Amino acid sequence: MSDDLTRDALRYHAEPVPGKLATALTKPCSTQAELSLAYTPGVAAPVRAIAEEPLDAFRYTGRGNLVGVISNGTAVLGLGNTGPLASKPVMEGKAVLFKQFADIDVFDIEVEAEDPDDFVETVARLGPTFGGINLEDIAAPACFDIERRLAERMDIPVFHDDQHGTAVIVAAGLLNALELQGKALADARIVCLGAGAAGIASMNLLLNLGARAENLRLVDRKGVIHAGRDDLNQWKSAFAVETADRTLEDALSGADVFIGVSGPDLLTREMVASMAAGPVVFALSNPDPEIRPEVARAVRDDLILATGRTDYPNQVNNVLGFPFIFRGALDVRASAINVPMTTAAVRALAELAREPVPSEVLTAYGRDDLAFGPDYIIPTPFDPRLGERVPAAVARAAVDSGVARVELPARYQT
Amino acid sequence: MSDDLTRDALRYHAEPVPGKLATALTKPCSTQAELSLAYTPGVAAPVRAIAEEPLDAFRYTGRGNLVGVISNGTAVLGLGNTGPLASKPVMEGKAVLFKQFADIDVFDIEVEAEDPDDFVETVARLGPTFGGINLEDIAAPACFDIERRLAERMDIPVFHDDQHGTAVIVAAGLLNALELQGKALADARIVCLGAGAAGIASMNLLLNLGARAENLRLVDRKGVIHAGRDDLNQWKSAFAVETADRTLEDALSGADVFIGVSGPDLLTREMVASMAAGPVVFALSNPDPEIRPEVARAVRDDLILATGRTDYPNQVNNVLGFPFIFRGALDVRASAINVPMTTAAVRALAELAREPVPSEVLTAYGRDDLAFGPDYIIPTPFDPRLGERVPAAVARAAVDSGVARVELPARYQT
Repeated sequence: MSDDLTRDALRYHAEPVPGKLATALTKPCSTQAELSLAYTPGVAAPVRAIAEEPLDAFRYTGRGNLVGVISNGTAVLGLGNTGPLASKPVMEGKAVLFKQFADIDVFDIEVEAEDPDDFVETVARLGPTFGGINLEDIAAPACFDIERRLAERMDIPVFHDDQHGTAVIVAAGLLNALELQGKALADARIVCLGAGAAGIASMNLLLNLGARAENLRLVDRKGVIHAGRDDLNQWKSAFAVETADRTLEDALSGADVFIGVSGPDLLTREMVASMAAGPVVFALSNPDPEIRPEVARAVRDDLILATGRTDYPNQVNNVLGFPFIFRGALDVRASAINVPMTTAAVRALAELAREPVPSEVLTAYGRDDLAFGPDYIIPTPFDPRLGERVPAAVARAAVDSGVARVELPARYQT
Repeated sequence: MSDDLTRDALRYHAEPVPGKLATALTKPCSTQAELSLAYTPGVAAPVRAIAEEPLDAFRYTGRGNLVGVISNGTAVLGLGNTGPLASKPVMEGKAVLFKQFADIDVFDIEVEAEDPDDFVETVARLGPTFGGINLEDIAAPACFDIERRLAERMDIPVFHDDQHGTAVIVAAGLLNALELQGKALADARIVCLGAGAAGIASMNLLLNLGARAENLRLVDRKGVIHAGRDDLNQWKSAFAVETADRTLEDALSGADVFIGVSGPDLLTREMVASMAAGPVVFALSNPDPEIRPEVARAVRDDLILATGRTDYPNQVNNVLGFPFIFRGALDVRASAINVPMTTAAVRALAELAREPVPSEVLTAYGRDDLAFGPDYIIPTPFDPRLGERVPAAVARAAVDSGVARVELPARYQT
């Protein structure tokens, strides 16, 4: 990070008040009469109502629009295990994004609990507070079990954004990239470098969308994950295939897709050159990608390229997903965010990128044009249509898959 | 509660949006450049700073102005154990009061943990999130141990408002009432009906202020707490005196002060008549006091009377205390709220009531006059001087007692 950015970011966080988030009142509360409604004696009325009918909490409290962004700080950005306190700026930042993009209220909760059992117990007991839980920056492989156990115990959505949020954007971009390259997902040979939260979730989501297991190669620090390895946890084992490929280089030879969720400069020119005709390269390590886009482009001009950065085309940015996925889930009081809902989000994002771009979006990005093609496979974060399309698709999928607890709101009915 | 109030309170909580609390951004975040400061990549700068120097969390995040209002819902208002979900309107209401009166941000946290051990573990692990913890509506006697254990484990203030918040206002009012009756606290015979959170904390605080143990009578459902009883928990035992008094009636005969934190209509005309000359009656059960003020007044005209209600003079209202106590504690990053700080709050409140009332306060209450005397022993909640005097006194006491972690802010220096 440049010195200028460091200085600007520290100043942004410190002035004029510390941090980025505050609470605000949604009702008038400046007279004695208003106090008597907001607090005693009037507040006894909604208490009694909820004690009798728990669903009334969605009517009389903010629970239905409130997400807990919760971390134990074990995998913060690319910085590793910084602990929960140092993760707070990230969690507050996530709260800012939820509010800015989808008007969802967020309490950021930093939990002193590295042990997964302690973390699960703590978060599970916070259930009455929230309408949904967004887990954040929790190290793999513990994150997989933590999410599964919490989802089983809680009656509200539990969503680990580093897994599924990333996977949704990757999958949406990949569907469009393959379409442009004239390839089918079911036939695509896909190599994923990085077998942490994002890599494993992305591969799982691609399987759900129609990719074929025998065409996937998941690669960790030790090389290709294959049936002959005896050092795999259960989540990696699920991707162990019978193959002669051992190295990233082996796997990429003739491959259609590279997805990097690993570290800087791990993809070489030679590897890119060895890929099949019309390849797709998602170099998502941030801020330094697995290969610099200008380098990859110099090797061959038939590729479609995406990164995690704002300064190149096709940014894979989680903010395209989580605010709108939760918006849809909360709006039908979903008890979970399931595969039908995430795949619905993928398809909504992919379809949106194929549509003409409104002039206000062009203005926001200072562009003369922006049209579906190799340099525009994913919508941009400030596209106002995101807030309609994605929540509607997710909410419909929740209803159709039986996890919604109220009917589809009228505005989501087509 | 009247049908009208029930209806108004439910409507207030339901419209135009559910609940009373939202989150808000304190920094601009609507362009790509601002996003890059609030979230990745810029957010890595404050993360690194806090990882290196934990106190920087007070500089770069909202932690220093953020209080957790936390309940397990085991003693909600006068309604009993409603569970955590049904307590949410009360906790949101508390958040509203913190914000409205002292500009303190609050996350209300409802915890599914009736077991004190589970509750303590859960709250202790939330430490990195908050600058202070306000425990609320937790049943006695568990609340005493819970508060003590959390205060020991956490490096931020842990304050059970049902105990100390109430005690501070009771004590402030009582100091002034005794002054008006020409009595000294050290000599006053004080009877407290109700040996729960508020009763025990009030008696402890009065001891700290100079009341004498042999002059106190704590009365629970079974009568006077005396040395001969073998059914007392450790917190009640501390008040077991050698006395022949067995009933509330016995204890009140010749007493100077009655403090009721119990239930409706438990104080009879005869008991009031039996008290010493110039008695003080705090009938704080809410909404229905231990004796109706007009009934007590009809028995004798030499008494000073306070209730928990807004529609009588001398309302003992916690909102006079907790927002300003926390304001002072947060402003010096206190590691605790200790006895010097609560007694400082008591004295600041008592002194304020003895000063001339500004015209804006008279206007707010539609009063022609309001002056220190039997019907004005406690400041009113909308007195703007509260926000200066009480935090300043509390912050100074924190510094003097060694629990402050920064110097006294200039505005608090006299």
